[in-house]
Amino acid sequence: MIEFWFEFASTYSYVAAMQIEAKCRNAGVARAWRPFSLGPIFALQGWGDSHFNLNPRRGAYMWRDLERLTEKFGLPWQRPSRFPRPTTLPLRVAAAFEDEPWCAGFVRAVFVANFGEDREIGERAVVAEILASVGQSPDEALRLAESPERRGRLRANTERAIGLGIMGAPNCVVGDELFWGEETLDDAIAWAQRED
Amino acid sequence: MIEFWFEFASTYSYVAAMQIEAKCRNAGVARAWRPFSLGPIFALQGWGDSHFNLNPRRGAYMWRDLERLTEKFGLPWQRPSRFPRPTTLPLRVAAAFEDEPWCAGFVRAVFVANFGEDREIGERAVVAEILASVGQSPDEALRLAESPERRGRLRANTERAIGLGIMGAPNCVVGDELFWGEETLDDAIAWAQRED
Repeated sequence: MIEFWFEFASTYSYVAAMQIEAKCRNAGVARAWRPFSLGPIFALQGWGDSHFNLNPRRGAYMWRDLERLTEKFGLPWQRPSRFPRPTTLPLRVAAAFEDEPWCAGFVRAVFVANFGEDREIGERAVVAEILASVGQSPDEALRLAESPERRGRLRANTERAIGLGIMGAPNCVVGDELFWGEETLDDAIAWAQRED
Repeated sequence: MIEFWFEFASTYSYVAAMQIEAKCRNAGVARAWRPFSLGPIFALQGWGDSHFNLNPRRGAYMWRDLERLTEKFGLPWQRPSRFPRPTTLPLRVAAAFEDEPWCAGFVRAVFVANFGEDREIGERAVVAEILASVGQSPDEALRLAESPERRGRLRANTERAIGLGIMGAPNCVVGDELFWGEETLDDAIAWAQRED
């Protein structure tokens, strides 16, 4: 079983999230969605912003790398006009429903809206539209996501991420092993098969 | 043609350097060694040390990742008792002889001494022994590497690395494209084949 730890604001999470479902299915490995917030994890490392903004050389490389990777994997790509975007609302929805089968389609649709269509995925109207596009009732899903029972799940995931030593996104966690970066999917899957 | 930009102090450069020769040969792509110093490039980003030391979470992940990667690729591994090590002398030798066929064996032997045998690769006696092990006269090679004609080649490489936007190691450069990280070797080789 692979836990896939991701953030909707993260470009490399996009590349990995679009592939993990098919890769795990082909490998016969179970997959769990683990949305979390990068903000508190960057703050722990002393950063008040994405390191891609804080370090211009690092940022310039990442944007070119994303052009290449999205071309390589045939993914929609439009450099977002705002980076990183606020993502708390869609992350809260994903965390509230991470065990539901429809969560996979919701996750991919939010990522495509951010990095393929340059949409403000933190806005309520956009999240509602995406929920409807995956066959859910937006009002009901948002109400549940913000209910006292489920509202805290995103924060709980983020605290677990900190405990796991996560320092960026995406990550795959297999047992005690942490694999960081979109390029580690295959290694994580091989590790999960070895553990079986 | 791929330029392989590396630093002997860099753990991920080790993983890539041990593989690039065979990968390029199998792909029919030419390869050039480009040793450079990471110190000035880290300084440009405001770091006085490796970010693996400055950021303990990042460092802990890297050391575990290196155990996994060296096991995966069957490479000797012993976590160095000093990190990063001074590397100016072996880098200067590699830069002075980067076009010589024996440079490939020298590069690999220096990396194995650092990361497989925990040796002080910055010391003159160690570099001399490695030069002898690849069939060179240590005195002659060191004299040439430190001669006025060749001594500046390492600094010239480092300045070119800065101009290329390099911010860590290893990197592959193919035309105007920069590929950073040990996991990008295959993408860089595919790019070089496309350019042909």
